[in-house]
Amino acid sequence: MSGPAVGVDVGGTKLLGVLATERGELLVEARRPTPTTTTAPGVALADEVVALVGDLAAASGIALDGAPVGVGLPGMLARDGRLAFAPNLPSATGADLPALLRPRLGHERIAVSNDADAAVVAEHRVGAARGVDDVVMITLGTGIGGGLIVDGRLVRGAAGFAGEIGHVVVDPNGPRCPCGKRGCWERYASGAGVARLAREAAIAGRLTALVAELGDAEAVRGEDVTRAAASGDAEALAVLDDVGWWLALGLANLVAILDPACFVLGGGVSSASELLVPATRRHLRGLLEAPDERPEVRVVGASLGPRAGAIGAALLAAELAA
Amino acid sequence: MSGPAVGVDVGGTKLLGVLATERGELLVEARRPTPTTTTAPGVALADEVVALVGDLAAASGIALDGAPVGVGLPGMLARDGRLAFAPNLPSATGADLPALLRPRLGHERIAVSNDADAAVVAEHRVGAARGVDDVVMITLGTGIGGGLIVDGRLVRGAAGFAGEIGHVVVDPNGPRCPCGKRGCWERYASGAGVARLAREAAIAGRLTALVAELGDAEAVRGEDVTRAAASGDAEALAVLDDVGWWLALGLANLVAILDPACFVLGGGVSSASELLVPATRRHLRGLLEAPDERPEVRVVGASLGPRAGAIGAALLAAELAA
Repeated sequence: MSGPAVGVDVGGTKLLGVLATERGELLVEARRPTPTTTTAPGVALADEVVALVGDLAAASGIALDGAPVGVGLPGMLARDGRLAFAPNLPSATGADLPALLRPRLGHERIAVSNDADAAVVAEHRVGAARGVDDVVMITLGTGIGGGLIVDGRLVRGAAGFAGEIGHVVVDPNGPRCPCGKRGCWERYASGAGVARLAREAAIAGRLTALVAELGDAEAVRGEDVTRAAASGDAEALAVLDDVGWWLALGLANLVAILDPACFVLGGGVSSASELLVPATRRHLRGLLEAPDERPEVRVVGASLGPRAGAIGAALLAAELAA
Repeated sequence: MSGPAVGVDVGGTKLLGVLATERGELLVEARRPTPTTTTAPGVALADEVVALVGDLAAASGIALDGAPVGVGLPGMLARDGRLAFAPNLPSATGADLPALLRPRLGHERIAVSNDADAAVVAEHRVGAARGVDDVVMITLGTGIGGGLIVDGRLVRGAAGFAGEIGHVVVDPNGPRCPCGKRGCWERYASGAGVARLAREAAIAGRLTALVAELGDAEAVRGEDVTRAAASGDAEALAVLDDVGWWLALGLANLVAILDPACFVLGGGVSSASELLVPATRRHLRGLLEAPDERPEVRVVGASLGPRAGAIGAALLAAELAA
C-alpha cells in the first residue's frame, strides 16, 4: 500500500499542483505563480514546488512528508535531470531540479520529466488512451509538445529529448521559428500557427466580419478566430480548417514514422481543439500512405484536460521505490 | 544449443538467402531471382524461399529441416503477417507469406518482417550500432526505408507499419510521390532524389563536364553524378552535398521525434553513401534544435552492407521458440 503522490505541472505563468492516488484520481489541487527571477536558476522554482507540497498537505489534511513528488517541465530535460533547454522557463534553464529538491524535501522520491511526457503517461494510463499501446500525445499551446508511448512504454530518447515534435520541419522555406530553423510544424499548427494563419487571412481580405468588428486586419489574433468560428463564422471556420490540415499533415508524418493507434490532442489551445479535432480527422486520411490498407488512426481530445501533466507527473513519481 | 537460422532478404529483382549463426555470423549464402508472376500472390515467392533453403542446405552440408526461417520483405507488413502494401513487390502484394510457408516448410519457426526492420536488428545486434539502445536505420535505395530501435527494442507500430520514414512530408508543395502525396522526404534524399536533383542541376546549366560527356543534360542519371563525384568533379560533389543537406533535414526531423543516439545509413545507394555520410554529418548539426545542448548524434555507414536484411531476418527467426 503506498499513499498518494504529488504532481506539479510547471507552465510559463503558473504551477499546477495535484495530489493524486496511484490510479490517478485527483484528491486536491493548488496553484502558485511561476517564478520569474533568472538568478540562481531553478532555486526559486524548487522553493515554490516545496511550498505547493505544503499547500496540498494543508488542503488535504494528509501529511506529505516523504510523499513522492513528480514535476513536469516545459523544455528539453536531459536524462540526468538537468533542464537543458527551456525558452519558456528562463528561471530554471540549466537547473538540476532533482538536486535542488532533494535537500528541500528531505527524500529522493522525486521524478522530473518533460511536461508532454507526463501528460501522455496520464492519458495512456487513466485518460483518453487507456488500454492503447501505441499513442502520441500532442500538446497544443503557443508551440507543439509531444509525448510518445511505444509498445506501452514512454519513449524518452537517448539524451532524454524525444517528443520535440513541434520542430519537425514541414517546409524548409517556411517562416522562421524561434528555434533557429525554418518551417517547423509548430509554426503552422499551434496557437502561434492559428495566430499567423489568421493574420495572413485577414490581411488577404478574408475574415471580413472579424476585421469589421476589430477595425484592423493587423489586430486579428488567434483567439478572435477561435471565438468567431465557435459562433459559426464561415470564414473563421475556414481558417481553422486550414490549421486542421496542417495539424493532420504533421500527424501523418508521425504515422509514417511510428504508426500509432491513437493521437490524443490536448494543451492550452483546448477551446480551439473542439473545432480542430474534427477538421484534423477529416484531413488525416487523405495524407496517409496507403490509407486503404491500414486501420483507422484515432484522433481524440485529451480527457484529463489541463490536469494531464500534473497527474502524469504524480503517476511517474508514484512508480519510484519508497 | 540451437542451430543456425536461414534469413532471406527479398528485393525487387533478387532474393538473398543466408545461413547465419545465432551471433549473426554468416555461414553460406545463395541468390535466386525474385518471381514476377502476379497470379496467386506470394505462392511463387514462397516456393523460391523454400528452394533457397534447399540451396543453403546443399552449400553448407547442414540439413535444414526444421531450421528457423526469417524473411525480410520490401513493403508494409501487417502484424498478422499479411504484406499489405508493396509497390516494389507486385508478385506478393496482399499475400500471407507465413501461411504459405508453413505447409511448405513443415514447421512454424517462420518470422516475416519488413526488410528495413530486419536490417536494423542486424546492425543493432551485430553491426555498426552494436551496444546502442536508440538507433534509426536508413536504407537508401530508390526510396528510403527505415527501421527503429527504441530502448533496445524494435518498433513495429500498432498496425506493423512503423518506419515508413521515406514518406515524411518535408514540403507539401514539393514533387509528387508515387504514394500519392507531395514532397515526401524520399523524393529528395534517396536514389530517386539524387536522380531528380542531378537532372535539375544539369538542366540548370550545372554539371558541365558530365553534360559534355553524355551529350545531353536530360541524359544525366544519379549514377553518373555519383561516379563523377567519386572522381572529384566539383559540380557533382555539389549535387551530392545538396542531397546530403536533404538527408540531414530528414534525420533532424527524426532527432526531434525520437532522439536516437545513432543513425545507420545503408541500402543500395551505398557507393553514394561514402560521399553522402560526410555531407550529411556536416549539415546535421545546423538543422537540430538546441544543438549545443545535446550530445552529438552519430551518423555511420552500415557495417553489414547488402547482407544486413538477410542476417537480421535470420536473427529474428532464431528468436522463435523451437
